[in-house]
Amino acid sequence: MRRRDSKRRARRPAGDLVPQTPWRRLVNPYPPLEILSADHLESIHDTSLRVLEELGIEFLLDEALEHLKAAGAEVTGQCVRFDRALVMELVSRAPAEFTLHPRNPERSVTFGGDHIAFNSVGGPANASDLDGGRRQGNFADFQNYIRLMQSLDVLHLCGGVPVAPIDLDAETRHLDCIQAILTLSDKVWHATGLGRKRVSDAVDMLAIVRGVTREEVRRKPGFFTTINVNSPRRIDGPMLEGLIEAATNGQAVSLTPFTLAGAMSPTTLPGSLVQQNAEALAGIAFAQIVAPGAPVFYGSFTSNVDMRTGAPAFGTPEYTRATLVSGQLARYYDLPYRSSNTNASNTVDAQAAYESQMSIWGAVLGHANLLHHGAGWLEGGLTASFEKAVLDAEMLQMIGEFLQPLVVNDETLAFDAIAEVQPGGHFFGARHTLRHYDTAFYQPMLSDWRNFETWHEDGARNATCRANRIWKELLRRFEAPPLDPARAEELEAFVRRRKEEEP
Amino acid sequence: MRRRDSKRRARRPAGDLVPQTPWRRLVNPYPPLEILSADHLESIHDTSLRVLEELGIEFLLDEALEHLKAAGAEVTGQCVRFDRALVMELVSRAPAEFTLHPRNPERSVTFGGDHIAFNSVGGPANASDLDGGRRQGNFADFQNYIRLMQSLDVLHLCGGVPVAPIDLDAETRHLDCIQAILTLSDKVWHATGLGRKRVSDAVDMLAIVRGVTREEVRRKPGFFTTINVNSPRRIDGPMLEGLIEAATNGQAVSLTPFTLAGAMSPTTLPGSLVQQNAEALAGIAFAQIVAPGAPVFYGSFTSNVDMRTGAPAFGTPEYTRATLVSGQLARYYDLPYRSSNTNASNTVDAQAAYESQMSIWGAVLGHANLLHHGAGWLEGGLTASFEKAVLDAEMLQMIGEFLQPLVVNDETLAFDAIAEVQPGGHFFGARHTLRHYDTAFYQPMLSDWRNFETWHEDGARNATCRANRIWKELLRRFEAPPLDPARAEELEAFVRRRKEEEP
Repeated sequence: MRRRDSKRRARRPAGDLVPQTPWRRLVNPYPPLEILSADHLESIHDTSLRVLEELGIEFLLDEALEHLKAAGAEVTGQCVRFDRALVMELVSRAPAEFTLHPRNPERSVTFGGDHIAFNSVGGPANASDLDGGRRQGNFADFQNYIRLMQSLDVLHLCGGVPVAPIDLDAETRHLDCIQAILTLSDKVWHATGLGRKRVSDAVDMLAIVRGVTREEVRRKPGFFTTINVNSPRRIDGPMLEGLIEAATNGQAVSLTPFTLAGAMSPTTLPGSLVQQNAEALAGIAFAQIVAPGAPVFYGSFTSNVDMRTGAPAFGTPEYTRATLVSGQLARYYDLPYRSSNTNASNTVDAQAAYESQMSIWGAVLGHANLLHHGAGWLEGGLTASFEKAVLDAEMLQMIGEFLQPLVVNDETLAFDAIAEVQPGGHFFGARHTLRHYDTAFYQPMLSDWRNFETWHEDGARNATCRANRIWKELLRRFEAPPLDPARAEELEAFVRRRKEEEP
Repeated sequence: MRRRDSKRRARRPAGDLVPQTPWRRLVNPYPPLEILSADHLESIHDTSLRVLEELGIEFLLDEALEHLKAAGAEVTGQCVRFDRALVMELVSRAPAEFTLHPRNPERSVTFGGDHIAFNSVGGPANASDLDGGRRQGNFADFQNYIRLMQSLDVLHLCGGVPVAPIDLDAETRHLDCIQAILTLSDKVWHATGLGRKRVSDAVDMLAIVRGVTREEVRRKPGFFTTINVNSPRRIDGPMLEGLIEAATNGQAVSLTPFTLAGAMSPTTLPGSLVQQNAEALAGIAFAQIVAPGAPVFYGSFTSNVDMRTGAPAFGTPEYTRATLVSGQLARYYDLPYRSSNTNASNTVDAQAAYESQMSIWGAVLGHANLLHHGAGWLEGGLTASFEKAVLDAEMLQMIGEFLQPLVVNDETLAFDAIAEVQPGGHFFGARHTLRHYDTAFYQPMLSDWRNFETWHEDGARNATCRANRIWKELLRRFEAPPLDPARAEELEAFVRRRKEEEP
């Protein structure tokens, strides 16, 4: 079956170690997998509204409590109870679909419906790679990670904070991070939603690189932020401030309860989904009070702990089923749906791959619109791995290809080709093959399909070692996407000024 | 989130390195994923019948040609053309569901409908593990592999020939293999279908260990064999002999064309599926001529080659889509469906895991009834890896758990548990948690969920290294399932006698 000729080799330029599928929007053409009956889904919905009516959610911010009271919720101390009609009315204000606009207008991304988009990991405290090992996050790693996320064409979005640069001042590091993202990348990004100023600065800085006003950024939003519920049933002050600032400025908000079954939510999956649903709907309802029509994601993060130790687990069978049911719930409310690419492995190995696959398939079959933490997440989210980012990119490229609908027509049904090749023959030289071989099949970035002997003689590198070469090659050839120097200077000046303002 | 108490630890006996889900039959409760429209499916069906009518299939056995001619097929030399009405009539004779009965009646397995069962790898020339490296197959490895397949409770079936024992005489090694399988395992197995005598010996030997006649084994079949089409459009003599012997003795036959798109079939996926379908239907039709009502599988193996090199690839996006469409085709003909767990990696790494996941998800969503090569396949099927077997078993256990329907009722919806735990609290001590934690979540065999520091201090073993410990532990504690000594002796005598008969 081995055959080489110059024409075939010509497909991949010599020295091109990193074949990628182009940056392209993806639509999921297949029906979602519905694992719960309509009745059972209704009972999760119903019980979660009972939680909101009878038990309530804590909102740890006076300003938020005032908004909620004015809108008709029942406020007792910091506990807020919602009438179910009120919840449903507020949730119905949220758009079923919206678009985010980065500085490069060609890279806008639409969420909702059958759209599906991939983002990098966000939030880890540590960085890791095979050369440098595991270390605390720092700004050099942060910048390299952004370069890598920009370079991986399968990722529609870039950042957030893939690794926390703890060598920078905590009060102003968001300015450095956003500046790095907006100069090194031209993709939609994820801004930290902790407190008002971080979100407000993100709006200003996006306005600068797009060369527009804050009002225009409000009208055509360009980033999203994650508002985690401090489960069970509590949304803390800085999160609420960030939510208010993002929503009133028109930026997208992902309401994502942290419902780890057995620890922060009940030890049964339906119960955890009830709690997730109550918490997500409460946050979404609140967003629609402060900014009616604000773009939001229904965020799911439900997983489970190891009951023997309490350690969080990800990409488990429970996680996959929760992801599918969450998709059913998001569609029930007609909301764009955000999921994640998770795993609990401590190293970039087979476990990291199969737990991620369990997460990815849950998201794809559940019709997630945004796969957050799409590339790089390791160790339950504590570490951003450079090799894992490449591994994830390969897995996502394969999914992207899987989502291309089969073209069925006379040419692809290939009766003539089958007629041309004799029994026991082969198709290598068939005219049909020559017409199709350039575009026929997915070409991998990371997978090695050479025979054992060739692979062994060439160093017997496993996928993780090959991923190491790939990210270094991508960084070596990285070029920042062009940015008007005047805007770059304005951005620089903004960051300088804002740093001077901070105490 | 860390919590330990003696009750929790008591769940897993001290020193139990290998928690497994019990041997249990699995039913796929979810709807299949249909990626082709009914129209497009019909056009694949229609074109494949055109292939059978106009182009035909070569049958390289005179006896087969006589059967085919007598049944009304058009025979020209070795080329057989089928009228479409004839094909459909013959295929309709095959049962939609059947059961295989091993020597342990409690381990019978039903195929068809929504049943799904997992088998080990079959066919590799090499064995491999971390200690011994990659080596040519031998009988010691064969026996250890059978012990491992028997020990992995997630596997419903065991063997065939997971690794070829080339240190044994080629003409009689099937006798040693079957004897080993029937003494070391009590599961349904896969017998080599190459030629008549191997299949006939399998029938005799199964009759001996079940303590019944050949006729009873015919009536209640106990193994299956794979009949590969030598694609394109050719079934060779030994395969046809094996098919005739298996079908006339009532044993199940998996008709599996070897349609590697770009090499043995067209360079477009619909074209390869047309060819696969024509070849599979021809083989199934032939089986129904020689033994009307014989149990058969619709076998799919369609993958693609790397067009640059001709190297076979597995677990690709094309493979997954072909697996799903093949499921649609099998259901179209109301036939039990056989798929595989494949990958092209040369080592047990992340690639081996993600390519296998792409295969497994295709099979599960395509409603395969038999996942052949379920555990151990490496390197495009050239090597049976002991560590890969454990990795696969973990992935299949997770799928088995994923296929358990969620129980939704007042207890699992857990309103009272949510009411019991205050906002910002935790569920560790909740009464609901105490009621559920023993059975709440999937307990992994291979995944390591400990935190990084603990994992690192304990040797920082990746999943492959951990798999190495697991299979050795399973072999260490292996006990063969009880077999009546008289039957074991009779089996031994049969093998001795048959060896003496061979030239």
